[in-house]
Amino acid sequence: MRVTTIHGTRDIRLEDRPVPTIDAPTDAIVRVVAACVCGSDLWPYRGENEITPGDPIGHEMVGVVEEVGSNVRTFKQGDFVIAPFCHCDNTCPHCQVGMTSGCQNLGFTQGGQAEFAKVHQAEGSLVKTDGMPDASLIPSLLTLSDVMATGWHAAVASQVRPGSTAVIVGDGAVGLCGALAASQLGAERVIVMSRHEARQKLATEFGATEIVEERGEEGEERILDLTGGVGADSVLECVGTDQSMRTAFKIARPGSTVGFVGVPHGVKLPVRRMFAHNVGLAGGMAPVRAYLPDLLERTLSGTIEPGKVFDMTLPLDEVAEGYRAMDERRATKVLLEP
Amino acid sequence: MRVTTIHGTRDIRLEDRPVPTIDAPTDAIVRVVAACVCGSDLWPYRGENEITPGDPIGHEMVGVVEEVGSNVRTFKQGDFVIAPFCHCDNTCPHCQVGMTSGCQNLGFTQGGQAEFAKVHQAEGSLVKTDGMPDASLIPSLLTLSDVMATGWHAAVASQVRPGSTAVIVGDGAVGLCGALAASQLGAERVIVMSRHEARQKLATEFGATEIVEERGEEGEERILDLTGGVGADSVLECVGTDQSMRTAFKIARPGSTVGFVGVPHGVKLPVRRMFAHNVGLAGGMAPVRAYLPDLLERTLSGTIEPGKVFDMTLPLDEVAEGYRAMDERRATKVLLEP
Repeated sequence: MRVTTIHGTRDIRLEDRPVPTIDAPTDAIVRVVAACVCGSDLWPYRGENEITPGDPIGHEMVGVVEEVGSNVRTFKQGDFVIAPFCHCDNTCPHCQVGMTSGCQNLGFTQGGQAEFAKVHQAEGSLVKTDGMPDASLIPSLLTLSDVMATGWHAAVASQVRPGSTAVIVGDGAVGLCGALAASQLGAERVIVMSRHEARQKLATEFGATEIVEERGEEGEERILDLTGGVGADSVLECVGTDQSMRTAFKIARPGSTVGFVGVPHGVKLPVRRMFAHNVGLAGGMAPVRAYLPDLLERTLSGTIEPGKVFDMTLPLDEVAEGYRAMDERRATKVLLEP
Repeated sequence: MRVTTIHGTRDIRLEDRPVPTIDAPTDAIVRVVAACVCGSDLWPYRGENEITPGDPIGHEMVGVVEEVGSNVRTFKQGDFVIAPFCHCDNTCPHCQVGMTSGCQNLGFTQGGQAEFAKVHQAEGSLVKTDGMPDASLIPSLLTLSDVMATGWHAAVASQVRPGSTAVIVGDGAVGLCGALAASQLGAERVIVMSRHEARQKLATEFGATEIVEERGEEGEERILDLTGGVGADSVLECVGTDQSMRTAFKIARPGSTVGFVGVPHGVKLPVRRMFAHNVGLAGGMAPVRAYLPDLLERTLSGTIEPGKVFDMTLPLDEVAEGYRAMDERRATKVLLEP
């Protein structure tokens, strides 16, 4: 089968590898219907993370069950499933309280930009639809495997409440989904920091009430101005750099929480500022499986259409171009069709 | 009047200075009935914080109103008051949501180990009792000006819930008050990390259900053992060093929150661990005024007796010995009588 692999900085290849096999009774093999490139895939692509040349890459996908291990009872060949990027048994003490990304049997989709991919802990991880969904729904369902659930996690972690003011730092696909999540969770003001016209437009479609184009100190001052000097009730930090984190802590009001979901790179948390201002930090790797039933219902009912984050669709054969387009910010998020 | 001043490392003096005066219409002057030495006073005492030689020191006190500014209407000469160490107007947007330690008109008691002390924003800050309280209540009321409210903040920030497991890192007066707070907030298991016999005993009186004597990695393993490998639902970090913070993050279960109230010194937050394990951090300078009505009621009704943290009482004239005793861990907390 064809699978995307990474060989070095900006060296993405499509290679022929064996179809994954059932090795544990909890495994399932999924025939990938749609996959995509994640912002976090750009870290190794840009040489910011260590890799082993030839590693399969990609962790967001939906598809049809091809084969299941003997302990997988709820799913069978032919089921259309959403595969959370982080796999969980959904029974351990952490899963029981909804922290499925802390599962004691945690696993990950590795090599999801491919024709077939393996899901560990399939019984606990997968969620299926009733029959094959309409093609128009596939992009939105695909976002539930990671990006939409991750934006949702930022909103939940930052404790967005009805009537509150949420600020989103980062206008990538996660940030845009964060704006959608904050809006869904009842924030009265959803302020997105973005200077990219197409993303501003989508942010507004997703519920943003205001856009702040300024960055750095200017952007921070603008947020404080917009909130009467008070700051944001919730800040969704959807980038993961030291600069974005600093901005997040400067615009968060005393007693509020920064929700962070961008994998931190080079971040030094301003612990004394956090202490002096009582600004907390929460978040991390999204517990996708825990959010899935709710997000699936919102998607199937048409309440949300997170699939709009995809502004480029390519055949899997052109995956390298998908990475380039996202790296160069020509695309917000790229959907791949095997 | 006599006031405690700091002149350098381990150089505490009692000096004669003028009684503070009403400079703003929001000021009040309080005749100090009881004051005490805070764990955070030991940072400058040990040379860990910069000082200006001759600075007045001390921020925890209760007393009787001596004089008020023209804008102070609720309090009059003779009222017995508890003075939160951080002063607030109790009307600004931050105070309105209970984050009084983020007040837009924040002030501090400076020179509270004295005969008289000034409270800025007296109207918003002070809380009075009906008449002069019984002498036996004074120690407990004194703790409400800082240490008990700070322990309470650690428990609130770490989201202690009924039935949960809370671990307290630090057996100083704040940690002990944290144990009392966790118990009051309904934690089923209150595990205190302490190897000091007298403090273990008081922790147990305050509601600790288990004591862990091991420190560092051994202590972390012990906590994980005690929680079936799951970790704590809430961790109250009541020290403020890098080591104690690392321990806190290692014993916190995925999805939980470390509540920190020890002024951080040399702390580097383990941001990648926080991300990978979804362990949040919340807390900071306690919003004492917001907690005061509830804590006062619990104290007056005899539900809590936080004054037990004082294991040494000295006349103000012997304040230097009070600092020495706490520095050398001969005393947990020292009450001073002017």
